Amino acid sequence: MELKNIKKIGVLTSGGDSPGMNAAIRAAVRAGFYYNLEMYGIYRGYEGMIQNDIKKLHSGDIAHVLERGGTFLKSARSADFRTTEGRQKAYNNLKSHGIDALIVIGGDGSLTGAHLFYKEFGIPAVGLPGTIDNDLSGTDATIGFDTACNTAIQAIDKIRDTATSHDRLFFVEVMGRDAGFIAINAGIGSAAAAILIPEKKMAIEELVEKLRIRTKAKKASNIVIVAEGGKSGGAAEIAEKVKKHLPYYDIKVTILGHLQRGGAPSSYDRLLASKLGVSAVEGLLQGKYDVMAGLINHKVVYTPIKRAIVDDKEVDEDDFRVAKILST
Amino acid sequence: MELKNIKKIGVLTSGGDSPGMNAAIRAAVRAGFYYNLEMYGIYRGYEGMIQNDIKKLHSGDIAHVLERGGTFLKSARSADFRTTEGRQKAYNNLKSHGIDALIVIGGDGSLTGAHLFYKEFGIPAVGLPGTIDNDLSGTDATIGFDTACNTAIQAIDKIRDTATSHDRLFFVEVMGRDAGFIAINAGIGSAAAAILIPEKKMAIEELVEKLRIRTKAKKASNIVIVAEGGKSGGAAEIAEKVKKHLPYYDIKVTILGHLQRGGAPSSYDRLLASKLGVSAVEGLLQGKYDVMAGLINHKVVYTPIKRAIVDDKEVDEDDFRVAKILST
Amino acid sequence: MELKNIKKIGVLTSGGDSPGMNAAIRAAVRAGFYYNLEMYGIYRGYEGMIQNDIKKLHSGDIAHVLERGGTFLKSARSADFRTTEGRQKAYNNLKSHGIDALIVIGGDGSLTGAHLFYKEFGIPAVGLPGTIDNDLSGTDATIGFDTACNTAIQAIDKIRDTATSHDRLFFVEVMGRDAGFIAINAGIGSAAAAILIPEKKMAIEELVEKLRIRTKAKKASNIVIVAEGGKSGGAAEIAEKVKKHLPYYDIKVTILGHLQRGGAPSSYDRLLASKLGVSAVEGLLQGKYDVMAGLINHKVVYTPIKRAIVDDKEVDEDDFRVAKILST
Amino acid sequence: MELKNIKKIGVLTSGGDSPGMNAAIRAAVRAGFYYNLEMYGIYRGYEGMIQNDIKKLHSGDIAHVLERGGTFLKSARSADFRTTEGRQKAYNNLKSHGIDALIVIGGDGSLTGAHLFYKEFGIPAVGLPGTIDNDLSGTDATIGFDTACNTAIQAIDKIRDTATSHDRLFFVEVMGRDAGFIAINAGIGSAAAAILIPEKKMAIEELVEKLRIRTKAKKASNIVIVAEGGKSGGAAEIAEKVKKHLPYYDIKVTILGHLQRGGAPSSYDRLLASKLGVSAVEGLLQGKYDVMAGLINHKVVYTPIKRAIVDDKEVDEDDFRVAKILST
Repeated sequence: MELKNIKKIGVLTSGGDSPGMNAAIRAAVRAGFYYNLEMYGIYRGYEGMIQNDIKKLHSGDIAHVLERGGTFLKSARSADFRTTEGRQKAYNNLKSHGIDALIVIGGDGSLTGAHLFYKEFGIPAVGLPGTIDNDLSGTDATIGFDTACNTAIQAIDKIRDTATSHDRLFFVEVMGRDAGFIAINAGIGSAAAAILIPEKKMAIEELVEKLRIRTKAKKASNIVIVAEGGKSGGAAEIAEKVKKHLPYYDIKVTILGHLQRGGAPSSYDRLLASKLGVSAVEGLLQGKYDVMAGLINHKVVYTPIKRAIVDDKEVDEDDFRVAKILST
Repeated sequence: MELKNIKKIGVLTSGGDSPGMNAAIRAAVRAGFYYNLEMYGIYRGYEGMIQNDIKKLHSGDIAHVLERGGTFLKSARSADFRTTEGRQKAYNNLKSHGIDALIVIGGDGSLTGAHLFYKEFGIPAVGLPGTIDNDLSGTDATIGFDTACNTAIQAIDKIRDTATSHDRLFFVEVMGRDAGFIAINAGIGSAAAAILIPEKKMAIEELVEKLRIRTKAKKASNIVIVAEGGKSGGAAEIAEKVKKHLPYYDIKVTILGHLQRGGAPSSYDRLLASKLGVSAVEGLLQGKYDVMAGLINHKVVYTPIKRAIVDDKEVDEDDFRVAKILST
Repeated sequence: MELKNIKKIGVLTSGGDSPGMNAAIRAAVRAGFYYNLEMYGIYRGYEGMIQNDIKKLHSGDIAHVLERGGTFLKSARSADFRTTEGRQKAYNNLKSHGIDALIVIGGDGSLTGAHLFYKEFGIPAVGLPGTIDNDLSGTDATIGFDTACNTAIQAIDKIRDTATSHDRLFFVEVMGRDAGFIAINAGIGSAAAAILIPEKKMAIEELVEKLRIRTKAKKASNIVIVAEGGKSGGAAEIAEKVKKHLPYYDIKVTILGHLQRGGAPSSYDRLLASKLGVSAVEGLLQGKYDVMAGLINHKVVYTPIKRAIVDDKEVDEDDFRVAKILST
Repeated sequence: MELKNIKKIGVLTSGGDSPGMNAAIRAAVRAGFYYNLEMYGIYRGYEGMIQNDIKKLHSGDIAHVLERGGTFLKSARSADFRTTEGRQKAYNNLKSHGIDALIVIGGDGSLTGAHLFYKEFGIPAVGLPGTIDNDLSGTDATIGFDTACNTAIQAIDKIRDTATSHDRLFFVEVMGRDAGFIAINAGIGSAAAAILIPEKKMAIEELVEKLRIRTKAKKASNIVIVAEGGKSGGAAEIAEKVKKHLPYYDIKVTILGHLQRGGAPSSYDRLLASKLGVSAVEGLLQGKYDVMAGLINHKVVYTPIKRAIVDDKEVDEDDFRVAKILST
C-alpha cells in the first residue's frame, strides 16, 4: 500500500455508543497533536459527515472526556450514507476541510462504512472496535465491553440482595445483541444458576431440571442470566415458560437495558481505548489503511476490516465449561 | 399503657426488602445486648413466626451485616398470618421461646400485622419503617428510600450518556408503588424533562408540548421519569402514546426494576436505620407499644402504627414546583 | 429592606469545592432564566471578580453539570479581596457588567465575603451553604456533606474487607475541619469501634480500654474513625499513641483525604442544591438580601449570613449516644 | 510426576488480601464438590495450618462470598512457618485431617511457602496468584489487580474534580509494592501528567519541566501518579521536592492506601478467580504439582512456582510509551 502524506485526520463515532469511546477519541486526538497533525471531529457519525458537521478539534475539546461515558462527538444512524449520493456528499465535505484520513470508532456497521469509503474514495481509514457487545474479531475485547460487564454484575449484585431475602428466582436480561459475551461474564461473575446465550441452546426442560436440583440443595435463591439475542426469547419469555413448570416459584424478571451502555469506563477500557486511539494515528502514519486496530494478548494488532467484522468470534468454550461446573 | 417486663425481644423483617434493613436489625440487636436483653431472630417474617423459624441471635450473627443490602432474616409473604389460626400458632411459638415483645421492620402491611398482633395478644411491638417507597407517615424518610434514590440517579446518569450521545428521548420507570417520592427525587436529581407521578396528573398532550418546546430549545436529549404506579400506565405505555405524537423522535424505555431494592445502604440509611434500631428497643423498654419509630427533623418520634400507615404522606409541593422551574 | 429592581445576577463559588456546587449553579441559572433574568458566571470566586473573569451564562453552559463534582465556575483563594482596594475593583467590575445581585456558594469564609460586600456596596446577595463540612447554621445539611459521608463509608467498606481478613485495627481519618459531622456519620455507618471528633474529648486510655474489651469479645478487626481537626492529633498520631499501649496489634492508618471532596453528588445533595439554587434567585427577587438560604426540616429558610456563619452548629447528642451503644 | 490419589484438598489464603480471593476459594471448593472431593478451609494462612485452625467446608460456607472483597478464610503472617518445627507441625495437622493436597492463594511469599512444603513433605500444591500488585509471572494478571486499578481510577476521578476546580497539582500515591503496574494503569486511566514507577527513573528536574510546559499550555490542573515503591520516595517526598521548584503551585498529596485492597471484585477478577479456582483443582487431579495456575491470553497455564515468583514481570514498554504520548 502506498504511504500517503497525511496531515489532517477526521475522527467519528458511529453506531451504539459504548463507554471508552471518549477515551479513544481523546487518545487519537492527543496522538495526532503529538505527531503534529490537525485533528477534526466529525459529529454524529456518517450523518454529520454528510451534513458537514465537522469541526477542528483543540486541546480544550478533549479535556475531561476520558472518564465520561458516551461520545462527545455523538452518534447517529445515517440512511443517506447507504446511498452513493450520500457518500459522495460526505467525501466532498471531507475534501473541503482537507481531511486526508479517517478514524472510525464503532461496531461492525460503522467499520463497514469505513471500509466502503476507503474502497470508493481511497480515504485511508483505521477502525477501532467500539461496542459493548465484544462481537468483533481482531481484538481480545472491544472498547466498552469490560465496563458493560462491570455494570451488569454491579446491578446483579443488588438484585441478588432481594433474591436472597425472598428466596426468589430472578431472570436478568443483559445486552450483547446476538453474542453471549456479556452474559457469560456476568453469569460467572454473579454465581448464576444458569446462563442462556444465543450460541448455546438450552431446552427449557433442562433449565427447569437444573433449577429443581438446586432448590433441593437448598439454593433457594437463584439468578438466571439471559442474553438478549437468544432464539428462545428474552428473559420475560423464558421466565414465562419456566413459570409453567415451576408454578410455586416466586419468579421476577429484570431487563438491565440501556444502563449497560453508559457510565464511566473501567480501568481496562480506559487503557484499551487509550492504546488503540494512539495506534489508530500511528497506523495511519505507517500506511495501515482499511484495518481495525485491536489488542491481542496485550499487543496492538491491525486486522483488515473485512476480516474483523466477520462475525466468527466465539464465546470461550472453557468459560462455558467453568460456568457449568460452578453452577452445579 | 402498663409497662411490661421485657426480657426477650423478637425481630423480624417483612414485605419487600429494602437497603438498611440489616443495619436496623443489627442496631436493634446490639441495643438489646446493651440493655441486657435476649434477642431472637424470626426468619422469613410472619411466615417464619408461624413455622417457628426462630433463633436466638448472638453477636456473630450481626457482624458485617450493616453494610449489606437485603435482610439476613429474610422476608416472605404469609397467607396464614391473615387467619386467626395462623396468628394463634405464631403467638404460641413466640411464647414457647419466651419472647415478650416484637420489633417489626417493613412497610404498611408488615406494620399492620404488628398492630393486629398487639391488639389480639397484647404483645408489645414497635414497628420500623422499612420500605424504599417512603409511603409511611411518622418519619421524614423510610429506611431504604435514600439508597433507592441514589441507585436510581446513578443508573439514570449512565442512561443519560447514551441519551446525549444519540439525541434520544428516554422514558425511565422507577419504583415507588403508588407514591411518587423516588420519581420526584430521581427526576430533580437527573435533570429530567418531566416527572410523571401518581399524585399529579399530566395529560399526554401537555407532556408532548413540553418535549416539543425543549427540542426547539436544542435540548435534544431528554429523560422522562415515570413512577411505576401511575394511572396513565408505566413508562412503556406512556412512551407508546408519546411516540404517536412525536413519530420522528428516537424513543427508548428502561424499567429500572428490582435493582432499586438492593445494594449497600447509603450513609443516610445507615444512620437512620441505626438510630431507629436503637429506638425500637428503647421504646419497648419505655412502654411505647403499638407504635412506629421514625425520625422527624432528626429527632426520634413514636407514632401510633394506625396513624403511620394511613397513606396520607404527600410529595412535597415545593419539590414539585422546583422540578417544574428546572425543567422549563 | 427596600426591594431592588434586579435584572442581572452574578453567581460564584468560593472556598473548598464540594459535590453539588454545580447542581446549585445550574439551578440558580435555570431559575434566573425562568424569571427572565440575565445570569453571569464569575469564575474563580472573588479573585475572578477582581480580575473581571466574568461571563454571561447561556443554557448550554449548564447542560450536563448537575451530576458532576467540583465547580465549573472554579474556585480560588483571594488575598486581594481582603483589601478595600480589591473589593472596590471587584465592585467596579460587577457594575461594568450591570450585575445587580450576587449568589455566593461556599463555606463561612465565602459567605462572609458576600456579607461584607453587601455592607460596603449594597449589592444584594444570597449565600448558599457549599461545603462538605456541614459546619454552617441555618440548614440541616450543607451542599456536599451527604456525598462526602457516602464517599467516606464506601471507602471504609473497602478498608473493612482488609481489616477483617487480617484481624487488623485501622485508624481512618476523615475530613470535616473542626467539625465532627462526617466522622460521626461515617462512624455509625461503618460500625466503628470508636469515633474521635473535635467536639468530644476521649482520652487515649479510654480508647485503648475500649479496644481491649472488644478484642476480648472476639471483635478482632476494628475501625476507629478520627476527624481531621481533633486536638489530640490526626489518625497517625492517635494510632502512634495507641500502638504504645497495644504493641501486639496490627495497626494501620488511612487518611481518606481529598477524594471526599469530589465525585458525583448524591441524590440528597442534588435535591438540596437544586432547591437552594432556585431559592437563591427567588430570595433575591423577594428582597431577601444578606442571607443564606438553607433547608430546615425540608423547608427553605433564609438566615442572616452573620448568624449562619456563627460556628454553633453541634453534632447531634443523640447520634453520639447511639454511636456509643452500637460500639459497646 | 507420579499421580497421587487426592481425596481431600485444603485451601488457604496468605499474605495481603486482594479482591477476588473469595471468588477463587469458592470456585475451588465448588469444583472440588463437582469432582467429589472433600474440601477444607485452612484459616489464617500458614499460621492457621500450624495452629490447626482447619475446618471442613460445606456448600453454605461459600454462598454469597464471590462478590465480597477480602478473604473469609482470613490471612495472617506466620513467623513459625519459617521454621522447620513450624512446618512439621503444620504437616502433622494436615495429615490428622487426611488432607492430601493444597491450594494456596497469595503473592510470592505465599507461593514460596507452598513450594517449600511440597519439597519437604511432598504435599501436592497448586498456587493461585492472589495479589493486587500483579508482580507474578505466569499470568497476564493477578487476582485483585484489575479491581485495584478500578478502585484507584475511581478515587482519582473524584480527586480530579477538586484539582480542576482549584487548578491544583495533586500527587496521588498508589499501591503496587516495587511494581508499577497499578500506577501505569491508573496513570493512563486518569490522564495523568506524569507517572512515577519504580522501574523507570525520572529526575525531579524532568518532572518539573514537564509540569511547567503543561501549565503554559493552560493545563492548569494536573495529577501525578506515584507508585509506592519508588526509590525517589513516595508521593509526599516527591511533592516536597517539586514544591521547591514550583513554589507558586497549589500542591496537594493523597495516599490512596488500603482502600485499594478491598471492595467487591471487578468482573474481570471474578472471571479470572473463578477460572483459576477450578483450574487449581483440575491441576491437582491431573498431577500438576508445585505450579501456579495463571491465565495467559485467556488460556489457563500452569507455571512452576519457582519460575512464577521470579520477579521478572515487566511493565509493558508500549504502555509506558503511550502514557508519554498522551501526557505530552
